[in-house]
Amino acid sequence: MAADPRFFATAGPHSLAAIAAAAGAGDVPDGARLFAGVAPLQTAGPDDVSFLDNRRYAAALATSRAGAVVIAAAMAGKVPAGCIPLVTSQPYLGFARVATLFHPQPKARPGVHPGAVIGAGAEIGEGCEIGAYAVVGAGAVLGKGCILEPHAVVGAGVVLGARCRIHSHASICHAIAGDEVVLNAGARIGGEGFGFATDATTGRHVTVPQVGRVILGDGCEIGANSTVDRGSGGDTVLGPGCRLDNLVQIGHNVRLGKGCVIVAMAGIAGSVTLGDYVVVAAQGGIAGHVTVGDRARIGAQAGVMQDVEAGTDVLGSPAQPSREKWRQIAVLRRLATAAIEAERKAAVQKVAGQGRTDSERNDGTREQG
Amino acid sequence: MAADPRFFATAGPHSLAAIAAAAGAGDVPDGARLFAGVAPLQTAGPDDVSFLDNRRYAAALATSRAGAVVIAAAMAGKVPAGCIPLVTSQPYLGFARVATLFHPQPKARPGVHPGAVIGAGAEIGEGCEIGAYAVVGAGAVLGKGCILEPHAVVGAGVVLGARCRIHSHASICHAIAGDEVVLNAGARIGGEGFGFATDATTGRHVTVPQVGRVILGDGCEIGANSTVDRGSGGDTVLGPGCRLDNLVQIGHNVRLGKGCVIVAMAGIAGSVTLGDYVVVAAQGGIAGHVTVGDRARIGAQAGVMQDVEAGTDVLGSPAQPSREKWRQIAVLRRLATAAIEAERKAAVQKVAGQGRTDSERNDGTREQG
Amino acid sequence: MAADPRFFATAGPHSLAAIAAAAGAGDVPDGARLFAGVAPLQTAGPDDVSFLDNRRYAAALATSRAGAVVIAAAMAGKVPAGCIPLVTSQPYLGFARVATLFHPQPKARPGVHPGAVIGAGAEIGEGCEIGAYAVVGAGAVLGKGCILEPHAVVGAGVVLGARCRIHSHASICHAIAGDEVVLNAGARIGGEGFGFATDATTGRHVTVPQVGRVILGDGCEIGANSTVDRGSGGDTVLGPGCRLDNLVQIGHNVRLGKGCVIVAMAGIAGSVTLGDYVVVAAQGGIAGHVTVGDRARIGAQAGVMQDVEAGTDVLGSPAQPSREKWRQIAVLRRLATAAIEAERKAAVQKVAGQGRTDSERNDGTREQG
Repeated sequence: MAADPRFFATAGPHSLAAIAAAAGAGDVPDGARLFAGVAPLQTAGPDDVSFLDNRRYAAALATSRAGAVVIAAAMAGKVPAGCIPLVTSQPYLGFARVATLFHPQPKARPGVHPGAVIGAGAEIGEGCEIGAYAVVGAGAVLGKGCILEPHAVVGAGVVLGARCRIHSHASICHAIAGDEVVLNAGARIGGEGFGFATDATTGRHVTVPQVGRVILGDGCEIGANSTVDRGSGGDTVLGPGCRLDNLVQIGHNVRLGKGCVIVAMAGIAGSVTLGDYVVVAAQGGIAGHVTVGDRARIGAQAGVMQDVEAGTDVLGSPAQPSREKWRQIAVLRRLATAAIEAERKAAVQKVAGQGRTDSERNDGTREQG
Repeated sequence: MAADPRFFATAGPHSLAAIAAAAGAGDVPDGARLFAGVAPLQTAGPDDVSFLDNRRYAAALATSRAGAVVIAAAMAGKVPAGCIPLVTSQPYLGFARVATLFHPQPKARPGVHPGAVIGAGAEIGEGCEIGAYAVVGAGAVLGKGCILEPHAVVGAGVVLGARCRIHSHASICHAIAGDEVVLNAGARIGGEGFGFATDATTGRHVTVPQVGRVILGDGCEIGANSTVDRGSGGDTVLGPGCRLDNLVQIGHNVRLGKGCVIVAMAGIAGSVTLGDYVVVAAQGGIAGHVTVGDRARIGAQAGVMQDVEAGTDVLGSPAQPSREKWRQIAVLRRLATAAIEAERKAAVQKVAGQGRTDSERNDGTREQG
Repeated sequence: MAADPRFFATAGPHSLAAIAAAAGAGDVPDGARLFAGVAPLQTAGPDDVSFLDNRRYAAALATSRAGAVVIAAAMAGKVPAGCIPLVTSQPYLGFARVATLFHPQPKARPGVHPGAVIGAGAEIGEGCEIGAYAVVGAGAVLGKGCILEPHAVVGAGVVLGARCRIHSHASICHAIAGDEVVLNAGARIGGEGFGFATDATTGRHVTVPQVGRVILGDGCEIGANSTVDRGSGGDTVLGPGCRLDNLVQIGHNVRLGKGCVIVAMAGIAGSVTLGDYVVVAAQGGIAGHVTVGDRARIGAQAGVMQDVEAGTDVLGSPAQPSREKWRQIAVLRRLATAAIEAERKAAVQKVAGQGRTDSERNDGTREQG
């Protein structure tokens, strides 16, 4: 089953030769054979290209009706009869490129909806598509081929590079963005950071004016309803190619290097610095002013309170090197099991001796009340 | 005190007989007596119906001025003089039905605001209410009696069943929804999933086109600012009657069975499958590709990394069966207490012997620095 | 480097005397000297005022070119030559006031955009600024000098005090707000709480009509994309001066005292009561119906399941007094280290004796699979 045509246009058909080239696979027989689209193993038909990247889905491969599959050499032997293996060292990457053949990024349909509001002095680049009720503030500058979906708001003075896509209800202010930046629906860029001083005498919170900006490098993509606060005095900076998932929070003055990946619901507090290609898994958190080195990986739900060295994996709250954390988990499990055993034995002895004590053996379950 | 009339219309008054019938309570004396509304125990007056479901509020019952109270048999004896007990086996459910008598769902006020934009070929069902600046994309289909609040955006090709309510600023695209689906303010349905392949050589992230949909079963309700990504190739599916609280994240290709309850700030990663009536408590997380069986309950802040069997309760991060987790918590508390005791004794002995050592007894507090 | 003039107007210049007075510093020499703005230590020039509050940045002070710096007495001696120390007991508070001299809150530019929709009977106070496509519902009342940014939605009957600022795409309904309340972009106030009763027989969830309100005290500020649900029957109440960061969730019937600080991604479940000046750190959670006393501090990622006494610090999930939690962390680390040591010794002995056993020594790493 190909993509629902109500929602997705499909380019093609494409020849197997073109598909193999996109996938980074070697020569294929029957290169002129045409394919209509891409689909998951479970629903692909003979005209579709699929992929296998996760061994977990090897069973789905065995019964797949896909006409071709992008796959690693080690798994190519498992391709069922009638399915052509497109062997490549990075199958998911190869598939990404094949799928993009069939589903290229939608291009801007140039024009400004009559309901859009364009502020004084704003510059709209050639070929931009500005949707219904989009608002572009005074003096803002949009590069060529940008798409503003309905209800997108670009604040006064904001600069967007070429081919940016601002989805519906997203808003950006106090910011400079590079080329091909994507804001998914409801993303909030450039809001006032959480900056206030609390008067120790009165308890009153006094706002510190937040007069920095957000700088988004080329190709940054921000997930739906995520929030990136502007700097307090300097800037909040996302290096080129960073990917933020949905509902992510980036505090003021944070600096991300190149290609960082911040998974859903992770939060990075103010003045944190991340190197290049750092991964923060879902619901992870990093406390203020911490520095994390290149290619470090912060585990899901981890709580980082201290600097993390480059290349390190950390887990837990507070976060620790993953090996240590797993060791601790194992030790604690063993101790709990031993405690249960000891209690059982003691109980048996008590019954045998008909003894009664104010045993503590319910410590654990009592906590549940 | 009844509901603030600036915000809530109240139907009624209703007779005690009708109220008792809605509550699922048996026969009541004085069935013709009229009641004006519902209110919490603390603020209800003699014309109001209230309820008691949580024993924690038994004290509030004793001093309540409510004219009638929906209550379980076991607590009925505690109703104060002058208050009529409406006894039912499920008091909160009974109250839900009584409250709905007085506050039925608002009905659509048919009409399309002149500021709304309706795309080419879109079909608007009979009796729909389309608010100011709502946008309905080309070819979208709305069932009878839908309400689109101001600034709601329904994308091209989207199908909504009958009596759906899309609150202000919510958006839905690439999706098929059943009847009586509710999107609270700012909910984002159908966004691009977090799908990209990272080139191992260059570190560059390459988007995988996300060409699946979101399918929302009848009666699904999505909380404010929650996000549900569309499938990558197949669909993201929520079974009928699922309830998502605010700020929830559902990744691409996730499948929820019937009646699942996902509490605020919980996140479900890509390709997770949940059975029917699964509960994920607040801030819980489920890692990608995991399967959770029917009626399993995932605790608040739990981090599920492995499959969970039907009917199981899990807690902790990483999540474990709740009994085991509580046992571990108790064992660790006991060990920490014992360590403090041992250190105290050692300190006393040292003072007695005037000894000095490089004791490690500050291990714990040193961590706080 | 001063604030980017594309985004920030700067008032001034201001005299050193005026600046010192705002900072709460004592007499200064050369009080007539003029300063142009504020900037961080790293980028400030001779015309800028900066501050030092966190010793972590002492190195930046040593090389700063700032003309003056707001600073505590203990650090004043470290100010480099040519930089004037403005000594005060609360440097960050002093800086907040100095920065506000240069960057006062933007004032409303009175007027209603022709694209705004004002409902029947709504009252718009003197000097309000109503942006493009803002929607004000029937009967709503706005105090003097409010700012509604583009796409802000104020629901029917809502009351806003004077000088409130509703940023773009924020929405508020079923609510009464005091003076100088701020809703950042995408904030959702007054949504339907997560209230339903589940029929134990059928598993069906039945909505309980949510007929309470949200009451926001003077000076409350709500972060971007945060959500505050209205009460179910009574009200959800935020005392004056509360500050909520981005992506915070407040459930129905919650009551916050004065000046509470709820950091990003923290969630407070239904019917929780917080005293005055409580701090909930990032990603913390509080379970339903819990009471937290004045000035208690809930740690980042903590999960509070029981009442917390005034003035207490808690940490961990489930949350415990911070000292106990740190002690437990230390004890567990020590045990894990000891286990590794014991295994190493056993391994050495085994090699020595060429013995073989079904050792459990891989327990820890096995978990990683």
